[in-house]
Amino acid sequence: MKLYGYFRSSTSYRVRIALNLKGLPYEQVPVHLVKDGGQHLTEAYRAINPAAAVPSLVLADGTVLTQSLAICDYLDDVCPQPPLLPSDPLGRARVRAFAQGIACDIHPVDNLRVLKYLGGPLGHDEETRTIWYRHWVTEGFRALEAMVAGNPSTGRYVHGDVPTLADVCLVPQMYNARRFNVDLTPYPTLCRLDQAARAIPAFAAAAPEQQPDAA
Amino acid sequence: MKLYGYFRSSTSYRVRIALNLKGLPYEQVPVHLVKDGGQHLTEAYRAINPAAAVPSLVLADGTVLTQSLAICDYLDDVCPQPPLLPSDPLGRARVRAFAQGIACDIHPVDNLRVLKYLGGPLGHDEETRTIWYRHWVTEGFRALEAMVAGNPSTGRYVHGDVPTLADVCLVPQMYNARRFNVDLTPYPTLCRLDQAARAIPAFAAAAPEQQPDAA
Repeated sequence: MKLYGYFRSSTSYRVRIALNLKGLPYEQVPVHLVKDGGQHLTEAYRAINPAAAVPSLVLADGTVLTQSLAICDYLDDVCPQPPLLPSDPLGRARVRAFAQGIACDIHPVDNLRVLKYLGGPLGHDEETRTIWYRHWVTEGFRALEAMVAGNPSTGRYVHGDVPTLADVCLVPQMYNARRFNVDLTPYPTLCRLDQAARAIPAFAAAAPEQQPDAA
Repeated sequence: MKLYGYFRSSTSYRVRIALNLKGLPYEQVPVHLVKDGGQHLTEAYRAINPAAAVPSLVLADGTVLTQSLAICDYLDDVCPQPPLLPSDPLGRARVRAFAQGIACDIHPVDNLRVLKYLGGPLGHDEETRTIWYRHWVTEGFRALEAMVAGNPSTGRYVHGDVPTLADVCLVPQMYNARRFNVDLTPYPTLCRLDQAARAIPAFAAAAPEQQPDAA
Protein backbone atom coordinates (compact mmCIF):
# COMPACT_ATOMS: atom_id res chain seq x y z
CA MET A 1 0.00 0.00 0.00
CA LYS A 2 1.04 3.58 -0.70
CA LEU A 3 0.00 6.37 1.61
CA TYR A 4 -0.05 9.82 0.03
CA GLY A 5 0.18 12.22 2.94
CA TYR A 6 1.94 15.09 4.65
CA PHE A 7 3.87 14.73 7.88
CA ARG A 8 2.01 17.52 9.67
CA SER A 9 -1.48 16.79 8.30
CA SER A 10 -3.55 15.48 11.17
CA THR A 11 -5.70 13.36 8.86
CA SER A 12 -2.58 11.67 7.43
CA TYR A 13 -1.36 11.22 11.02
CA ARG A 14 -4.61 9.37 11.89
CA VAL A 15 -4.15 6.88 9.05
CA ARG A 16 -0.47 6.33 9.93
CA ILE A 17 -1.51 5.44 13.49
CA ALA A 18 -4.23 3.06 12.26
CA LEU A 19 -1.86 1.31 9.84
CA ASN A 20 0.77 0.98 12.58
CA LEU A 21 -1.76 -0.37 15.10
CA LYS A 22 -2.75 -3.02 12.56
CA GLY A 23 0.89 -3.78 11.83
CA LEU A 24 0.36 -3.18 8.11
CA PRO A 25 3.40 -2.13 6.07
CA TYR A 26 3.05 0.91 3.78
CA GLU A 27 5.14 3.13 1.60
CA GLN A 28 4.82 6.86 2.15
CA VAL A 29 4.51 9.28 -0.76
CA PRO A 30 4.94 12.82 0.59
CA VAL A 31 2.55 15.48 -0.77
CA HIS A 32 3.77 18.84 0.46
CA LEU A 33 0.80 21.08 1.25
CA VAL A 34 2.80 24.32 1.11
CA LYS A 35 5.73 23.82 -1.29
CA ASP A 36 5.12 24.49 -5.03
CA GLY A 37 1.89 26.31 -4.09
CA GLY A 38 0.59 23.05 -2.62
CA GLN A 39 1.45 19.76 -4.32
CA HIS A 40 -2.05 18.46 -3.50
CA LEU A 41 -3.51 21.03 -5.91
CA THR A 42 -1.68 19.71 -8.98
CA GLU A 43 -3.52 17.93 -11.78
CA ALA A 44 -1.39 14.85 -11.14
CA TYR A 45 -2.57 14.59 -7.54
CA ARG A 46 -6.18 15.48 -8.39
CA ALA A 47 -6.16 12.49 -10.74
CA ILE A 48 -5.54 10.35 -7.65
CA ASN A 49 -7.89 12.23 -5.32
CA PRO A 50 -10.35 14.68 -6.90
CA ALA A 51 -10.88 16.33 -3.51
CA ALA A 52 -7.22 17.46 -3.67
CA ALA A 53 -6.82 16.43 -0.05
CA VAL A 54 -4.52 14.14 1.88
CA PRO A 55 -4.44 11.34 2.80
CA SER A 56 -5.08 8.91 -0.05
CA LEU A 57 -4.35 5.24 0.44
CA VAL A 58 -3.58 3.34 -2.76
CA LEU A 59 -4.07 -0.41 -2.49
CA ALA A 60 -1.91 -3.00 -4.24
CA ASP A 61 -4.40 -3.25 -7.14
CA GLY A 62 -4.43 0.54 -7.62
CA THR A 63 -7.74 1.21 -5.88
CA VAL A 64 -7.63 4.63 -4.22
CA LEU A 65 -9.25 5.15 -0.82
CA THR A 66 -9.90 8.64 0.52
CA GLN A 67 -11.17 10.28 3.72
CA SER A 68 -9.20 9.32 6.79
CA LEU A 69 -12.08 7.91 8.84
CA ALA A 70 -13.38 5.88 5.89
CA ILE A 71 -9.86 4.50 5.46
CA CYS A 72 -9.69 3.55 9.16
CA ASP A 73 -13.03 1.74 8.88
CA TYR A 74 -11.79 -0.06 5.76
CA LEU A 75 -8.64 -1.18 7.58
CA ASP A 76 -10.81 -2.42 10.44
CA ASP A 77 -12.98 -4.34 7.94
CA VAL A 78 -10.12 -6.10 6.16
CA CYS A 79 -7.77 -6.46 9.12
CA PRO A 80 -9.99 -6.76 12.20
CA GLN A 81 -7.18 -7.32 14.75
CA PRO A 82 -6.61 -5.34 16.85
CA PRO A 83 -10.02 -3.66 16.46
CA LEU A 84 -10.30 0.14 16.27
CA LEU A 85 -13.82 0.02 17.70
CA PRO A 86 -15.39 -1.70 20.72
CA SER A 87 -17.63 -4.69 20.01
CA ASP A 88 -20.82 -3.32 21.66
CA PRO A 89 -23.04 -0.85 19.73
CA LEU A 90 -23.14 1.75 22.53
CA GLY A 91 -19.37 1.63 22.94
CA ARG A 92 -18.94 1.98 19.18
CA ALA A 93 -21.32 4.94 19.17
CA ARG A 94 -19.36 6.63 21.97
CA VAL A 95 -16.02 6.13 20.22
CA ARG A 96 -17.39 7.31 16.87
CA ALA A 97 -19.02 10.37 18.43
CA PHE A 98 -15.73 11.32 20.10
CA ALA A 99 -13.81 10.80 16.85
CA GLN A 100 -16.35 12.87 14.92
CA GLY A 101 -16.21 15.60 17.57
CA ILE A 102 -12.72 16.09 16.15
CA ALA A 103 -13.13 15.00 12.53
CA CYS A 104 -16.37 16.96 11.92
CA ASP A 105 -16.45 19.70 14.57
CA ILE A 106 -12.83 20.85 14.95
CA HIS A 107 -10.51 19.81 12.16
CA PRO A 108 -12.49 20.90 9.04
CA VAL A 109 -12.99 24.46 10.32
CA ASP A 110 -9.31 24.80 11.26
CA ASN A 111 -7.93 23.09 8.19
CA LEU A 112 -5.15 24.75 6.18
CA ARG A 113 -7.44 25.51 3.21
CA VAL A 114 -9.84 27.41 5.48
CA LEU A 115 -7.02 29.37 7.14
CA LYS A 116 -5.73 30.19 3.65
CA TYR A 117 -9.16 31.48 2.58
CA LEU A 118 -9.32 33.64 5.71
CA GLY A 119 -5.88 35.07 4.90
CA GLY A 120 -6.39 35.36 1.13
CA PRO A 121 -9.88 36.34 -0.11
CA LEU A 122 -10.95 37.65 3.32
CA GLY A 123 -7.66 39.43 4.04
CA HIS A 124 -7.33 38.52 7.73
CA ASP A 125 -3.94 38.75 9.42
CA GLU A 126 -2.19 35.95 11.24
CA GLU A 127 -3.43 37.05 14.64
CA THR A 128 -7.08 36.84 13.54
CA ARG A 129 -6.45 33.44 11.98
CA THR A 130 -4.85 32.19 15.20
CA ILE A 131 -7.82 33.44 17.26
CA TRP A 132 -10.10 31.64 14.79
CA TYR A 133 -8.07 28.45 15.12
CA ARG A 134 -8.10 28.53 18.92
CA HIS A 135 -11.80 29.37 19.06
CA TRP A 136 -12.88 26.16 17.31
CA VAL A 137 -10.38 23.95 19.14
CA THR A 138 -11.54 25.40 22.45
CA GLU A 139 -15.23 24.88 21.61
CA GLY A 140 -14.55 21.32 20.53
CA PHE A 141 -12.22 20.37 23.37
CA ARG A 142 -14.68 21.69 25.96
CA ALA A 143 -17.32 19.28 24.63
CA LEU A 144 -14.85 16.38 24.39
CA GLU A 145 -13.51 16.97 27.92
CA ALA A 146 -17.12 16.87 29.17
CA MET A 147 -17.60 13.55 27.33
CA VAL A 148 -14.64 11.82 28.96
CA ALA A 149 -14.08 13.48 32.37
CA GLY A 150 -15.54 11.32 35.12
CA ASN A 151 -17.19 9.00 32.61
CA PRO A 152 -16.95 5.37 33.76
CA SER A 153 -16.27 4.26 30.16
CA THR A 154 -13.10 6.35 30.05
CA GLY A 155 -10.08 4.27 31.00
CA ARG A 156 -6.38 4.47 30.31
CA TYR A 157 -7.49 5.53 26.83
CA VAL A 158 -10.64 7.32 25.62
CA HIS A 159 -12.71 4.14 25.78
CA GLY A 160 -11.46 1.58 28.27
CA ASP A 161 -7.91 0.31 28.31
CA VAL A 162 -7.43 -0.39 24.63
CA PRO A 163 -6.75 2.36 22.07
CA THR A 164 -9.58 3.02 19.60
CA LEU A 165 -10.48 5.30 16.73
CA ALA A 166 -11.11 7.99 19.37
CA ASP A 167 -7.43 8.00 20.38
CA VAL A 168 -6.44 7.81 16.70
CA CYS A 169 -8.21 11.15 16.23
CA LEU A 170 -7.30 12.73 19.59
CA VAL A 171 -3.51 12.51 19.36
CA PRO A 172 -3.15 14.34 16.01
CA GLN A 173 -5.62 17.06 17.10
CA MET A 174 -3.69 17.61 20.35
CA TYR A 175 -0.45 17.82 18.37
CA ASN A 176 -2.07 20.41 16.14
CA ALA A 177 -3.39 22.40 19.11
CA ARG A 178 0.09 22.51 20.67
CA ARG A 179 1.47 23.85 17.38
CA PHE A 180 -0.94 26.77 17.67
CA ASN A 181 -0.10 27.22 21.38
CA VAL A 182 -3.63 26.50 22.56
CA ASP A 183 -3.85 26.53 26.37
CA LEU A 184 -4.63 22.92 27.20
CA THR A 185 -4.90 23.24 31.00
CA PRO A 186 -8.75 23.32 30.91
CA TYR A 187 -8.69 19.79 29.43
CA PRO A 188 -6.81 17.64 31.97
CA THR A 189 -8.51 14.40 30.90
CA LEU A 190 -7.76 14.96 27.22
CA CYS A 191 -4.12 15.70 28.17
CA ARG A 192 -3.84 12.50 30.18
CA LEU A 193 -5.42 10.39 27.42
CA ASP A 194 -3.23 11.97 24.75
CA GLN A 195 -0.10 11.29 26.77
CA ALA A 196 -1.08 7.67 27.38
CA ALA A 197 -1.78 7.05 23.69
CA ARG A 198 1.42 8.72 22.52
CA ALA A 199 3.41 6.27 24.63
CA ILE A 200 2.15 3.37 22.45
CA PRO A 201 4.80 2.50 19.82
CA ALA A 202 2.23 2.57 16.95
CA PHE A 203 1.34 6.14 17.88
CA ALA A 204 4.93 7.22 18.53
CA ALA A 205 6.10 5.95 15.13
CA ALA A 206 3.30 7.92 13.42
CA ALA A 207 4.33 11.26 14.94
CA PRO A 208 5.01 14.01 12.40
CA GLU A 209 8.65 14.47 13.40
CA GLN A 210 9.30 10.77 12.68
CA GLN A 211 8.18 10.98 9.06
CA PRO A 212 10.52 11.04 6.04
CA ASP A 213 9.13 14.39 4.86
CA ALA A 214 9.48 16.13 8.26
CA ALA A 215 11.11 19.52 7.82
CA MET B 1 -36.58 7.33 21.14
CA LYS B 2 -36.49 11.10 21.22
CA LEU B 3 -34.73 13.06 18.51
CA TYR B 4 -33.63 16.55 19.49
CA GLY B 5 -33.23 18.39 16.22
CA TYR B 6 -34.12 21.32 14.02
CA PHE B 7 -36.15 21.01 10.85
CA ARG B 8 -33.61 22.82 8.67
CA SER B 9 -30.45 21.32 10.23
CA SER B 10 -28.92 19.01 7.66
CA THR B 11 -27.43 16.76 10.35
CA SER B 12 -30.88 16.32 11.95
CA TYR B 13 -32.26 15.66 8.47
CA ARG B 14 -29.71 12.83 8.00
CA VAL B 15 -30.82 11.08 11.20
CA ARG B 16 -34.52 11.48 10.33
CA ILE B 17 -33.87 9.76 6.99
CA ALA B 18 -31.94 6.92 8.66
CA LEU B 19 -34.65 6.37 11.28
CA ASN B 20 -37.32 6.38 8.56
CA LEU B 21 -35.37 3.94 6.37
CA LYS B 22 -35.13 1.58 9.35
CA GLY B 23 -38.82 2.05 10.10
CA LEU B 24 -38.03 3.08 13.68
CA PRO B 25 -40.59 5.30 15.43
CA TYR B 26 -39.30 8.44 17.20
CA GLU B 27 -40.61 11.51 18.93
CA GLN B 28 -39.21 14.84 17.77
CA VAL B 29 -38.14 17.51 20.26
CA PRO B 30 -37.53 20.74 18.32
CA VAL B 31 -34.45 22.75 19.28
CA HIS B 32 -34.67 26.10 17.49
CA LEU B 33 -31.19 27.20 16.42
CA VAL B 34 -32.14 30.86 15.96
CA LYS B 35 -35.04 31.66 18.33
CA ASP B 36 -34.15 32.72 21.90
CA GLY B 37 -30.58 33.35 20.79
CA GLY B 38 -30.32 29.64 19.91
CA GLN B 39 -32.06 27.08 22.09
CA HIS B 40 -29.12 24.69 21.61
CA LEU B 41 -26.91 27.08 23.59
CA THR B 42 -28.96 26.87 26.79
CA GLU B 43 -27.64 25.12 29.89
CA ALA B 44 -30.61 22.74 29.71
CA TYR B 45 -29.63 21.56 26.24
CA ARG B 46 -25.91 21.48 27.02
CA ALA B 47 -26.75 19.05 29.83
CA ILE B 48 -28.05 16.70 27.12
CA ASN B 49 -25.31 17.39 24.58
CA PRO B 50 -22.19 19.25 25.79
CA ALA B 51 -21.29 20.09 22.18
CA ALA B 52 -24.46 22.25 22.06
CA ALA B 53 -25.23 20.81 18.65
CA VAL B 54 -28.15 19.01 17.07
CA PRO B 55 -29.07 16.25 16.63
CA SER B 56 -29.09 14.23 19.85
CA LEU B 57 -30.88 10.91 19.96
CA VAL B 58 -32.09 9.87 23.41
CA LEU B 59 -32.72 6.15 23.77
CA ALA B 60 -35.50 4.62 25.88
CA ASP B 61 -33.12 4.15 28.84
CA GLY B 62 -31.98 7.79 28.69
CA THR B 63 -28.65 7.17 26.93
CA VAL B 64 -27.81 10.14 24.73
CA LEU B 65 -26.19 9.60 21.34
CA THR B 66 -24.59 12.48 19.46
CA GLN B 67 -22.97 13.12 16.07
CA SER B 68 -25.22 12.29 13.13
CA LEU B 69 -22.92 9.77 11.43
CA ALA B 70 -22.20 7.96 14.71
CA ILE B 71 -25.96 7.77 15.27
CA CYS B 72 -26.49 6.32 11.78
CA ASP B 73 -23.82 3.68 12.43
CA TYR B 74 -25.45 2.85 15.77
CA LEU B 75 -28.83 2.41 14.09
CA ASP B 76 -27.20 0.15 11.52
CA ASP B 77 -25.63 -1.88 14.36
CA VAL B 78 -28.82 -2.42 16.35
CA CYS B 79 -31.24 -2.56 13.43
CA PRO B 80 -29.29 -4.01 10.49
CA GLN B 81 -32.20 -4.13 7.99
CA PRO B 82 -32.22 -2.44 5.58
CA PRO B 83 -28.47 -1.78 5.77
CA LEU B 84 -27.09 1.74 5.34
CA LEU B 85 -23.79 0.36 4.04
CA PRO B 86 -22.86 -2.21 1.37
CA SER B 87 -21.57 -5.57 2.62
CA ASP B 88 -18.17 -5.49 0.87
CA PRO B 89 -15.28 -3.51 2.41
CA LEU B 90 -14.48 -1.54 -0.77
CA GLY B 91 -18.14 -0.62 -1.25
CA ARG B 92 -18.35 0.46 2.37
CA ALA B 93 -15.21 2.55 1.96
CA ARG B 94 -16.67 4.25 -1.13
CA VAL B 95 -19.97 5.05 0.60
CA ARG B 96 -18.22 6.31 3.74
CA ALA B 97 -15.80 8.46 1.72
CA PHE B 98 -18.71 10.03 -0.15
CA ALA B 99 -20.62 10.66 3.09
CA GLN B 100 -17.54 12.18 4.72
CA GLY B 101 -16.95 14.35 1.65
CA ILE B 102 -20.11 16.07 2.87
CA ALA B 103 -19.94 15.52 6.64
CA CYS B 104 -16.26 16.52 6.99
CA ASP B 105 -15.45 18.65 3.94
CA ILE B 106 -18.57 20.72 3.28
CA HIS B 107 -21.02 20.89 6.13
CA PRO B 108 -18.75 21.85 9.08
CA VAL B 109 -17.26 24.83 7.25
CA ASP B 110 -20.69 26.09 6.16
CA ASN B 111 -22.43 25.39 9.44
CA LEU B 112 -24.57 28.09 11.09
CA ARG B 113 -22.07 28.63 13.93
CA VAL B 114 -19.28 29.32 11.44
CA LEU B 115 -21.45 31.72 9.41
CA LYS B 116 -22.34 33.46 12.71
CA TYR B 117 -18.67 33.84 13.61
CA LEU B 118 -17.98 35.34 10.17
CA GLY B 119 -20.81 37.81 10.65
CA GLY B 120 -20.16 38.55 14.34
CA PRO B 121 -16.50 38.66 15.48
CA LEU B 122 -15.17 39.01 11.92
CA GLY B 123 -17.84 41.53 10.82
CA HIS B 124 -18.49 40.16 7.33
CA ASP B 125 -21.71 41.08 5.54
CA GLU B 126 -24.25 38.66 4.17
CA GLU B 127 -22.82 38.78 0.66
CA THR B 128 -19.38 37.69 1.88
CA ARG B 129 -20.93 34.94 3.96
CA THR B 130 -22.91 33.70 0.95
CA ILE B 131 -19.76 33.67 -1.20
CA TRP B 132 -18.04 31.70 1.58
CA TYR B 133 -20.92 29.23 1.73
CA ARG B 134 -20.96 28.69 -2.03
CA HIS B 135 -17.18 28.36 -2.22
CA TRP B 136 -17.04 25.31 0.07
CA VAL B 137 -20.12 23.67 -1.43
CA THR B 138 -18.68 24.14 -4.91
CA GLU B 139 -15.27 22.72 -3.90
CA GLY B 140 -16.93 19.74 -2.25
CA PHE B 141 -19.51 19.04 -4.95
CA ARG B 142 -16.83 19.16 -7.66
CA ALA B 143 -14.99 16.32 -5.89
CA LEU B 144 -18.18 14.36 -5.24
CA GLU B 145 -19.38 14.71 -8.84
CA ALA B 146 -15.99 13.36 -9.98
CA MET B 147 -16.45 10.40 -7.61
CA VAL B 148 -19.83 9.37 -9.00
CA ALA B 149 -19.96 10.52 -12.64
CA GLY B 150 -19.28 7.62 -14.98
CA ASN B 151 -18.31 5.36 -12.08
CA PRO B 152 -19.64 1.83 -12.61
CA SER B 153 -20.53 1.58 -8.89
CA THR B 154 -22.94 4.48 -9.22
CA GLY B 155 -26.45 3.27 -9.88
CA ARG B 156 -29.92 4.60 -9.32
CA TYR B 157 -28.45 5.88 -6.03
CA VAL B 158 -24.89 6.85 -5.06
CA HIS B 159 -23.85 3.23 -4.65
CA GLY B 160 -25.85 0.77 -6.69
CA ASP B 161 -29.61 0.59 -6.63
CA VAL B 162 -30.17 0.69 -2.88
CA PRO B 163 -29.97 3.92 -0.85
CA THR B 164 -27.01 4.11 1.55
CA LEU B 165 -25.41 6.47 4.04
CA ALA B 166 -24.09 8.38 1.01
CA ASP B 167 -27.62 9.30 -0.08
CA VAL B 168 -28.54 10.02 3.55
CA CYS B 169 -25.86 12.74 3.50
CA LEU B 170 -26.36 13.93 -0.09
CA VAL B 171 -30.03 14.86 0.07
CA PRO B 172 -29.75 17.25 3.07
CA GLN B 173 -26.64 18.90 1.61
CA MET B 174 -28.39 19.45 -1.73
CA TYR B 175 -31.38 20.92 0.10
CA ASN B 176 -29.02 23.26 1.91
CA ALA B 177 -27.26 24.25 -1.32
CA ARG B 178 -30.58 25.12 -2.96
CA ARG B 179 -31.44 27.33 0.02
CA PHE B 180 -28.27 29.32 -0.70
CA ASN B 181 -29.04 29.39 -4.44
CA VAL B 182 -25.90 27.48 -5.39
CA ASP B 183 -25.77 26.82 -9.15
CA LEU B 184 -26.11 23.04 -9.35
CA THR B 185 -25.85 22.66 -13.14
CA PRO B 186 -22.15 21.60 -12.97
CA TYR B 187 -23.21 18.53 -10.93
CA PRO B 188 -25.69 16.64 -13.12
CA THR B 189 -24.98 13.28 -11.49
CA LEU B 190 -25.45 14.64 -7.97
CA CYS B 191 -28.74 16.24 -9.12
CA ARG B 192 -29.99 12.97 -10.59
CA LEU B 193 -29.03 10.98 -7.48
CA ASP B 194 -30.59 13.55 -5.15
CA GLN B 195 -33.84 13.48 -7.11
CA ALA B 196 -33.98 9.69 -7.09
CA ALA B 197 -33.40 9.50 -3.33
CA ARG B 198 -35.93 12.22 -2.53
CA ALA B 199 -38.61 10.13 -4.24
CA ILE B 200 -38.20 7.40 -1.60
CA PRO B 201 -40.92 7.79 1.07
CA ALA B 202 -38.37 7.57 3.96
CA PHE B 203 -36.49 10.53 2.47
CA ALA B 204 -39.62 12.49 1.57
CA ALA B 205 -41.03 12.20 5.10
CA ALA B 206 -37.74 13.52 6.53
CA ALA B 207 -37.78 16.71 4.44
CA PRO B 208 -37.56 19.93 6.49
CA GLU B 209 -40.93 21.25 5.33
CA GLN B 210 -42.63 18.08 6.63
CA GLN B 211 -41.39 18.54 10.22
CA PRO B 212 -43.54 19.79 13.11
CA ASP B 213 -41.20 22.73 13.76
CA ALA B 214 -41.10 23.90 10.12
CA ALA B 215 -41.65 27.66 9.95
